[in-house]
Amino acid sequence: MIDTLINARWVLPVAPEFKVLENHSIAIEHGRIIDLLPIDEAAEKYSARHIIERSNHVVMPGLINAHTHIAMSLFRGLADDLPLMTWLNDHIWPAEASQINPEFMRLGTQLGIAEMLKSGTTCFHDMYFYPDVVARTASDLGMRATVGMIVIDFPSAWASNADEYFEKGLAVSDEYKTDPLISTVFAPHAPYTVNDDNFKRIVATAYELEKPIHIHLHETESEVSDSVEKTGQRPMQRMENLGVLSPDLIAVHMTELSDEEIEKLAHNGVNVVHCPESNMKLASGFCPVDKLIKAGVNVALGTDGAASNNDHDMLGEMRSAAMLAKVVAKDATAVSAQTAIEMATINGAKALGLGDEIGSLEVDKWADICCIDLSALNTQPVHNPVSQIVYSASASQVSDVWVAGKHLLNQKLLTNLDEAELSEDVQKWHSNFTESP
Amino acid sequence: MIDTLINARWVLPVAPEFKVLENHSIAIEHGRIIDLLPIDEAAEKYSARHIIERSNHVVMPGLINAHTHIAMSLFRGLADDLPLMTWLNDHIWPAEASQINPEFMRLGTQLGIAEMLKSGTTCFHDMYFYPDVVARTASDLGMRATVGMIVIDFPSAWASNADEYFEKGLAVSDEYKTDPLISTVFAPHAPYTVNDDNFKRIVATAYELEKPIHIHLHETESEVSDSVEKTGQRPMQRMENLGVLSPDLIAVHMTELSDEEIEKLAHNGVNVVHCPESNMKLASGFCPVDKLIKAGVNVALGTDGAASNNDHDMLGEMRSAAMLAKVVAKDATAVSAQTAIEMATINGAKALGLGDEIGSLEVDKWADICCIDLSALNTQPVHNPVSQIVYSASASQVSDVWVAGKHLLNQKLLTNLDEAELSEDVQKWHSNFTESP
Repeated sequence: MIDTLINARWVLPVAPEFKVLENHSIAIEHGRIIDLLPIDEAAEKYSARHIIERSNHVVMPGLINAHTHIAMSLFRGLADDLPLMTWLNDHIWPAEASQINPEFMRLGTQLGIAEMLKSGTTCFHDMYFYPDVVARTASDLGMRATVGMIVIDFPSAWASNADEYFEKGLAVSDEYKTDPLISTVFAPHAPYTVNDDNFKRIVATAYELEKPIHIHLHETESEVSDSVEKTGQRPMQRMENLGVLSPDLIAVHMTELSDEEIEKLAHNGVNVVHCPESNMKLASGFCPVDKLIKAGVNVALGTDGAASNNDHDMLGEMRSAAMLAKVVAKDATAVSAQTAIEMATINGAKALGLGDEIGSLEVDKWADICCIDLSALNTQPVHNPVSQIVYSASASQVSDVWVAGKHLLNQKLLTNLDEAELSEDVQKWHSNFTESP
Repeated sequence: MIDTLINARWVLPVAPEFKVLENHSIAIEHGRIIDLLPIDEAAEKYSARHIIERSNHVVMPGLINAHTHIAMSLFRGLADDLPLMTWLNDHIWPAEASQINPEFMRLGTQLGIAEMLKSGTTCFHDMYFYPDVVARTASDLGMRATVGMIVIDFPSAWASNADEYFEKGLAVSDEYKTDPLISTVFAPHAPYTVNDDNFKRIVATAYELEKPIHIHLHETESEVSDSVEKTGQRPMQRMENLGVLSPDLIAVHMTELSDEEIEKLAHNGVNVVHCPESNMKLASGFCPVDKLIKAGVNVALGTDGAASNNDHDMLGEMRSAAMLAKVVAKDATAVSAQTAIEMATINGAKALGLGDEIGSLEVDKWADICCIDLSALNTQPVHNPVSQIVYSASASQVSDVWVAGKHLLNQKLLTNLDEAELSEDVQKWHSNFTESP
């Protein structure tokens, strides 16, 4: 008697080989995948406490959102269609200054996790304040997360100086050392907000603790040109000199890249997180995704924060990534639906240092699973389930999600959160926010 | 006693002025809007046979999909991620050759209309074969459509030569002359598939009958360079010489445009239909939407066919349009959420020659209305309903649709179609298609 058997019309294991299995079952025990086999064989081989029939559905690895600022979900739509500096100076920074505290972080993280689970995401990387609260909230809800030990050269509600950022970040890392759902990575905000000394300290500590480093890098043309003006170096060159470029680096955005820099990323095994919707909406630029992939760079996918995207919908992000890459590369074969799915699953897992644990439906990996109903008219007929997932399905078709074998979304209902209560809390926060001076 | 009163949390009339009305009612009688006023005033002034309470919802004009090939919904996902000529030669054209007939057109149109209604679209422009079947199907279902009298220089299942294309197209136009839901426009396929004589005949007949002309124009770089090679002229120049450029022209795609050509479009009052997702997915190029709008060109929005997009979701298309325009213009203020909504409503109406009849919630216009529920977690909190519609809402949040006052989608249920039956028919077609040699 095993825990769970999921019988699905289509199964996409994603790795070790990308293929579509028809009428297959996934067997789950102790939170991990123990078998993947035809439904009729599974019926003979296993009895299970929970047998889940999903006969119009595709079952695939849970989506991995490799870059967000999750609690910003509360600022979703607060200020759009503005120049970057107006947006930051007049809206986001004042809102952060007045709002960021543990309570805000808890509520914003709950809202973000609820939205993620309802759209098939089972793991997210967060880079924001109060990683302790984000980790606690995720762990309590059974959600997988990697949280960033943020380092930035100015004081915030979370910490007032470099020592405090390091100390508090490392305390979070210590606290969750044995939590199977939570891992921690260093998160220097960006080259222009972290000085050389702090980078050196991060590199040394990350090396010692075997932690990845997650950073905004080459997000915009002006970031690069400002750096050249101030330091005589492009940010990537400075990162290389500081020893930051390595297979443990997760470089986010990367819209401004020369062919030589692309080669250097590949040579150093650097992971890139592409955030197509944020890059479009903030007019940041075009990440050369097709070139990066062809050069052998591991490219993952992220939504960025919901204040700049404005959602946590990784199905939509896959679609945007696949579409945008084609027109940027002037090649309709660039970033296929298969590639987009790999970016949102196994590539994300590898980038976050979790490639052996999640990102595909393979025996012994955690049962982090997403199930999508393709019976909706907008995904009919199903000539090819892979195309339908990326180019036609919407988040509302995600029917089920499991994280480490726990059924967190069951036929579109959250099992770990009272949605109505959460919605009320969010609206209460919003009323207070709009009434505050 | 009037027919319908819709009481909504937010109402977006879109025109004559773009604003957000809170707690307003729309009064409907004989299929048209007769009043727009605060809910409390409406309660005193009107009694209605149908009182619709939508307290978490935004009510706005029904979306107008200004360019599609609707029956291609049956080819959705048939072949993706391929070079254009492989896609056409090896997949789409053979599929069309074996499949296109009145029965296919009827089923594909039903599927497309069902998908459109469920995602808030109340009017579409179709350019494909058998406009008679498309018109009949739309009219029977209560859907508004403008159908293209297709003209193309090669034979198809619909017609075998120019005379037959004209004759059959004009017969459709005649048949629906008095149908309030259906209008007809000339639809020469593209400059490279229609000869000068046929263009002259279209221009003369369209002028006489006061019909718009809808055409694929400057879709790709190679269309333009091929034309220069063959005729010594860019397609737009040829169109100008043939008298095609006018306020009655609806030019679709327009990815390759010089600043001079943009000025010429503005000067001639030409309407442009932007299809951002198709342009991205087929690697066609970037339409300079922000420049066009700033030059005063009326820019509408279309999904293109579901074989190249792959859906009929105009909310998604608005979002893609707003996001893509920003990064193309290198300006985060380009194509605001407001502008995207205007493109998908009033601009579409104007382009199709229906600017006095639909496209906004104004007294005396048809009650073509879309209602979106913003209570879902992914659109919470609502700092700004306009942002939420464009940047966060998904098609699944469309709760209701009225066309000419008829409630065709009622709390997410189609009232004019049996969804299960339609789905079965589509799957039956799909089985036959995949089994055919």
